[in-house]
Amino acid sequence: MSRLRTTFQQSTGQVSGHGKRNVGVLTAAFAAIEDGRSSDQYGTGPFIEPFEQKMADLLGMEEAVFFPSGTMAQQIALRIWSDETGNRTVAYHPLCHLEIHEQDGLKELHPIQTLLVGEADRLMTLDEIKALPEIACLLLELPQREIGGVAPTFTELEAISRHCRERGIRLHLDGARLFEMLPYYQKTAAEIAALFDSVYISFYKGLGGIAGAILAGPAAFCQTARIWKRRYGGDLISLYPYIVSADHYYELRKDRMGQYYENAKQLAERFNALPGVFTTPEVPVSNMFHLHFSGQSDEVSPKLEQIQETTGIGLVGYLVDKDGYCSTEISLGDAYGKLATDRLNEVFEQLDQMFS
Amino acid sequence: MSRLRTTFQQSTGQVSGHGKRNVGVLTAAFAAIEDGRSSDQYGTGPFIEPFEQKMADLLGMEEAVFFPSGTMAQQIALRIWSDETGNRTVAYHPLCHLEIHEQDGLKELHPIQTLLVGEADRLMTLDEIKALPEIACLLLELPQREIGGVAPTFTELEAISRHCRERGIRLHLDGARLFEMLPYYQKTAAEIAALFDSVYISFYKGLGGIAGAILAGPAAFCQTARIWKRRYGGDLISLYPYIVSADHYYELRKDRMGQYYENAKQLAERFNALPGVFTTPEVPVSNMFHLHFSGQSDEVSPKLEQIQETTGIGLVGYLVDKDGYCSTEISLGDAYGKLATDRLNEVFEQLDQMFS
Repeated sequence: MSRLRTTFQQSTGQVSGHGKRNVGVLTAAFAAIEDGRSSDQYGTGPFIEPFEQKMADLLGMEEAVFFPSGTMAQQIALRIWSDETGNRTVAYHPLCHLEIHEQDGLKELHPIQTLLVGEADRLMTLDEIKALPEIACLLLELPQREIGGVAPTFTELEAISRHCRERGIRLHLDGARLFEMLPYYQKTAAEIAALFDSVYISFYKGLGGIAGAILAGPAAFCQTARIWKRRYGGDLISLYPYIVSADHYYELRKDRMGQYYENAKQLAERFNALPGVFTTPEVPVSNMFHLHFSGQSDEVSPKLEQIQETTGIGLVGYLVDKDGYCSTEISLGDAYGKLATDRLNEVFEQLDQMFS
Repeated sequence: MSRLRTTFQQSTGQVSGHGKRNVGVLTAAFAAIEDGRSSDQYGTGPFIEPFEQKMADLLGMEEAVFFPSGTMAQQIALRIWSDETGNRTVAYHPLCHLEIHEQDGLKELHPIQTLLVGEADRLMTLDEIKALPEIACLLLELPQREIGGVAPTFTELEAISRHCRERGIRLHLDGARLFEMLPYYQKTAAEIAALFDSVYISFYKGLGGIAGAILAGPAAFCQTARIWKRRYGGDLISLYPYIVSADHYYELRKDRMGQYYENAKQLAERFNALPGVFTTPEVPVSNMFHLHFSGQSDEVSPKLEQIQETTGIGLVGYLVDKDGYCSTEISLGDAYGKLATDRLNEVFEQLDQMFS
């Protein structure tokens, strides 16, 4: 393990996240759950059915299906829309999760081809969407994670949605971080979801659960999704370890997203005031941003390691080299609020000295 | 819910299983796990790597991969062997899990066709295997669950294995209940697995965990299986809720399989002594058998409901109508050993009166 990661993991406070991903995350979620409560059973029964209904209501969709992962949920969503429209082409951003993190599962498991819309370093535009050939489905990710968490305005979203409806293109929301976007849009989850035909949300990003996802949409879509979930081997006899934690951390953190967003803006502003340090977006629209340091990681890492060692604050666990700079991702959560002001000030004083 | 299921679920002791599938199954497994222990992370790190190694060693295979489900693990095994042999056909029993419980996932997700070997109501024979055209892989399930848990002798298994090796056919073991078979074979798991190229085992059948499976085989096979696991959306950020419970209940119950097997034989003998009641196999070869009652379920259910209500012992949660009789499955576990002898005697006295 790199010294950067080691010093990050040994830190006693972190700028990102909700604290360590350990067994305590599970035991806290189960603390109020009685031992006698029955497991869900292959997608039915207690825990799973009420939670699916709760998420369907929250998203204003007819039904919702709990999945072990978003990878499984989203491939299935695209396959269903492909079958329903009789069109084998779907479109998404060049840095879509399905394109870069899933070992080409969509294309290996389904007779589907993909079109990449726009450029990798920015959001796709409405004009680019309008220029697409006939497709089954367009997937939009809010916020676009791989470019730092950028998102169109609500007005732009409405225009994309209107265009897709006019053209008969199904619009799917990769809402892995949908809740994290609500403070920026000043909308409910249902108001955003209403622009889409189907929605996926994740429970271990800003919400900080153990794993798990919801796929929501029309009733017929969800019924077909359950069949595909079984085909994939995602219809486990018991999913309650993920469902209980999803519900627990949703309830715990759903009303904190505004604070995470404010903290992200404040923190990004502070980084951007440093010489040789910048963020994308410059002003965050969610709890996340990408943090960049001038220079390559072999020069930057030792500096950050020293800061992490001397302050005990974890800032960066990894760095990816880019053209003339190196980058990491910051996602604000509960951990930031627990940092003592003077310890954080010390981090920024050291950064200011080291990168000047 | 049917009254048969209700009276079964309200029973205070059961003939089958390990007791109720409830949250207590999870809390007991985590009782000795410290909150500070770190989660696994996308197939790496604590919990998952040591457990995979332990299972690989136990099965005498080079590597092992933990999966959320056997459905996912086995489809992937067959796909890998199909790719490796350049042959798109695999063969299995007509009542194989992949054929009847997975919504045709194998065929929907892969360019694979299947051959059904032998008849639905009995084991396939070596002659039937010898008569197969060229295939990539033969899947054998030990014991064959859907016909009551029947299995070939070890000598027959050796002959099948020898034939497959001579013909270049990969032999995959559906060992969902492999541990349950060891007392009959008087062999170790590794001695059975040595006859196969790849092995799947499950942690929520006789072992009574929450969910999860292991797929074991050669190193290259397992490395490819990890890629497919990601494609399927089975490479969850955290699988530890299933891994911890798998390990806990494996350790708790691995040495009890002999007792479950003895109990199954004793119990089956007792059922077969009743008029109008019989089991398949007549003499179990594992902890399981199918239990049959003369007559159709609408006549049989009220009798069993009355027995379950008056004795408080759960015998049957469901009945499936067959030709002139109806059937259920019995799997011996910890619950049987907790039944007071006089309460069980009362059940058999009532059965004797009602089915005479």
